[in-house]
Amino acid sequence: MQDVEEHIDLVTQRQLWFFFGTVIFLIGGLMVLPALLEFALEGEAHHAFEMSAIFTMIFGGLMALSMWSREFGRMNLRHAFLLIGGLWLIVPGVAAIPLVGYGMTPVDALFEMASGFTTTGSTVLTDLDREAEGVLLWRAMSQWMGGIGIVVMSIFILPFLRIGGMQLFRVESWEGTEKVFAHAGSMIGGIVGIYLTFSLLCMVAYAAGGMTFFDAILHAMTTVSTGGYSSHDASFGYYSSPFLQWTCIVFMVLGSLPFLFFMKMMAREHRGPLKDSQVEFFLLSVILISLLSAFWLALDQQIGYLTALRLTAFNVVSVVSTTGFATTDYTLWGPGAVMLFFLLTLVGGCAGSTAGGIKAYRLVILSKLIRVRLWKLETPNRVAPIRFNDGPVEEDTIVSILSFLTMFTVSVLAGALLLSFTGLDFITALSAATTAICNVGPGIGDIVGPAGNFESLSSFAKLVLSFLMILGRLEIFTVLILFSPGFWTR
Amino acid sequence: MQDVEEHIDLVTQRQLWFFFGTVIFLIGGLMVLPALLEFALEGEAHHAFEMSAIFTMIFGGLMALSMWSREFGRMNLRHAFLLIGGLWLIVPGVAAIPLVGYGMTPVDALFEMASGFTTTGSTVLTDLDREAEGVLLWRAMSQWMGGIGIVVMSIFILPFLRIGGMQLFRVESWEGTEKVFAHAGSMIGGIVGIYLTFSLLCMVAYAAGGMTFFDAILHAMTTVSTGGYSSHDASFGYYSSPFLQWTCIVFMVLGSLPFLFFMKMMAREHRGPLKDSQVEFFLLSVILISLLSAFWLALDQQIGYLTALRLTAFNVVSVVSTTGFATTDYTLWGPGAVMLFFLLTLVGGCAGSTAGGIKAYRLVILSKLIRVRLWKLETPNRVAPIRFNDGPVEEDTIVSILSFLTMFTVSVLAGALLLSFTGLDFITALSAATTAICNVGPGIGDIVGPAGNFESLSSFAKLVLSFLMILGRLEIFTVLILFSPGFWTR
Repeated sequence: MQDVEEHIDLVTQRQLWFFFGTVIFLIGGLMVLPALLEFALEGEAHHAFEMSAIFTMIFGGLMALSMWSREFGRMNLRHAFLLIGGLWLIVPGVAAIPLVGYGMTPVDALFEMASGFTTTGSTVLTDLDREAEGVLLWRAMSQWMGGIGIVVMSIFILPFLRIGGMQLFRVESWEGTEKVFAHAGSMIGGIVGIYLTFSLLCMVAYAAGGMTFFDAILHAMTTVSTGGYSSHDASFGYYSSPFLQWTCIVFMVLGSLPFLFFMKMMAREHRGPLKDSQVEFFLLSVILISLLSAFWLALDQQIGYLTALRLTAFNVVSVVSTTGFATTDYTLWGPGAVMLFFLLTLVGGCAGSTAGGIKAYRLVILSKLIRVRLWKLETPNRVAPIRFNDGPVEEDTIVSILSFLTMFTVSVLAGALLLSFTGLDFITALSAATTAICNVGPGIGDIVGPAGNFESLSSFAKLVLSFLMILGRLEIFTVLILFSPGFWTR
Repeated sequence: MQDVEEHIDLVTQRQLWFFFGTVIFLIGGLMVLPALLEFALEGEAHHAFEMSAIFTMIFGGLMALSMWSREFGRMNLRHAFLLIGGLWLIVPGVAAIPLVGYGMTPVDALFEMASGFTTTGSTVLTDLDREAEGVLLWRAMSQWMGGIGIVVMSIFILPFLRIGGMQLFRVESWEGTEKVFAHAGSMIGGIVGIYLTFSLLCMVAYAAGGMTFFDAILHAMTTVSTGGYSSHDASFGYYSSPFLQWTCIVFMVLGSLPFLFFMKMMAREHRGPLKDSQVEFFLLSVILISLLSAFWLALDQQIGYLTALRLTAFNVVSVVSTTGFATTDYTLWGPGAVMLFFLLTLVGGCAGSTAGGIKAYRLVILSKLIRVRLWKLETPNRVAPIRFNDGPVEEDTIVSILSFLTMFTVSVLAGALLLSFTGLDFITALSAATTAICNVGPGIGDIVGPAGNFESLSSFAKLVLSFLMILGRLEIFTVLILFSPGFWTR
């Protein structure tokens, strides 16, 4: 019996390595695209991408082949955590190889790719407008793949790992069927289809609005993934066209809505109106904050209300959707704006989207919980269950969400402390830790602010931030468990 | 039946007003002390204190007399919340009267007294060394009374209101008897006795160490109450004597340990060693942080380790105990120190002491909870109860603590946002909101830092901070419930 169990464990470990090998092989395969582009344009980075593609594909292929097994062991929870954690560590590491070949330091390359695959969008590259096209494409691709990766993971894996209240989004609970996993393939197909459609529509709109074809592709990829990498140092501020900016606003919003919501919308299997308190809360807060702050900005800067609305809507949506494009340095709008944008950094989009941050459903449930707690203080024996989208929320899910919020705060503060010991001032350290964990991109201050660049940070600070991006992207607990004593000793 | 209930409600409302009237009368009575001092010294403030004492005593006395009733209604939870909330609003308001009479603006006077009775210690007075003795005495008295007030409240009232996990400290749970309330009188006596003893010992030590008799009284009052008001602009830095500084460290620590711990220590009714995980955690973290940062400071500033230890121990204890005395401007020790002291501001002392902040027991339970949550991710069906001081912690208590931590963070951020809209920069707004809610005193930056003064803030900012001090002092939910819809409509 003992033998059989150990055998199964070995098989699943082989499966893990086989899976990682396949992923490395695929990443290598994708490097062919920037390699071809560089080759066609006779760019300086073609060598780096070609060699990296060959090397990575061979390495990944050999790894997968050597780990191939006809036996199938059943994955347990422990392996699922290893798989996700490993994936988000290995992928940025492998994707950084061509950038190192191109001349970046290993730490810079890792930072750039961690920021890419987590769809954060903080960059260490300083002269984007003259950067090699292959590098720009590779950065945009990292965000685009990271975006769909996180959507699939947050729909099919995190709910079953019961991370930070994600158990609310178990697919069967809205599907009402046990045949979910039989449908998983077609569901993933649907989700990828939606993602592709959004990307194409966004690209066409960008091109129609005056972007070059190349820029339209890049920015479409980093918009729907709420990533925020641009091919210009001025970020989206390079484009002054209101049409382009409003297009961007629309697709950033689409990228931060739950993809299951779109599936439900298309399927229309259910009766009654399409109600989703997460979507309502997200849209309502974004609209209200944009409208109100536009009112204030119009008065303060003596500009027309519509111009002000475009400015506030763009930057509010950019931060709340955790995209991180900037059209202007909003930290110059005064201390109130600085604090407001810092708080917006925390909020984030909806669960099951490409957006990061705390996420709307946690705030919805938190506000209901606080109301119930206040009631219960007055009448202790009152039974007041909390409901979310017409389903009851279990006590354990609430503890899960509250634990998430607390560890989220602890992570931000611990990250800020580490960064401040590298010599960064209070606001830079705190906002950099926050923007990394929330996968937004820009922080506050000269260095990490919307007009700044992460390049001047120390290597240690860049590694801390890379770790924080992954920590936030994987909803904190998925990473913490890998560091918990006992996990490795079973 | 309806009539009887309404009658009971009226009786308890009369009781409330009777109680408030009595309190106002007593505050007026206490004003006689600074009035006598000013009279004896022929000071300029004697008129203000005399008139205020008379006016307040007459008003409070009349109010109490007119609300006197021989009938006794049973207080319900709702009245308990009204009583506590009312008390911490009325007392600073009434105590501010002589300061207004003395020439301060009403907002400044309210701020100074809110800061006093919540034992925060932030001040708007700029020339303390030449301030009227009566005013200095009145400020010290406000902290001394606020200190014992919060100890009694956190032992006898908050646990029964189940605020923020305080239900862990219901007296019967350590007493093991139902006759608690029969003993309440003698217990309060014991607690006040301990407080008086500490104050006297502290005063004697201060006088022996070279303080004037007047300064020794004042600083003893603001040390054991972990308040931090001083009679010098340089705060405790006015005294360079190592003996005085170490004395202060000892009594700040004593003020932030649970007073029930001292009672248990004296009573020695129980068998076995005296174990209290809150006390252990608090002492251990304070000692470790002091030792480690002293090591770093000695290297960084090229000073002896013992001198460095005195500097770090004093300032770490001062902030963690939420006293807020300063011997030096620790924000000049570099960005790492700034962030560290910001985080220490949050920590706070033990529940059941005069200290504010998040408090040690919540951090102890939080760390246990996170370990259990990580275990449960891997093995979902595992039953892992959390224990605190050998008793099990109920699920509802955990939700209570986590809700507290979350609303604590929300309150800090909301306060910071309001303050930043008055024009305060990020670090000033955030650290001022934090130091107010945690009842520490100094924040970070030129204005609210250890070397700054709150005087230059706008009236609105001072009112916001006064509110935050009371919010933090009453463990947030006690105040929030007064603002919850439905509380006033029953």
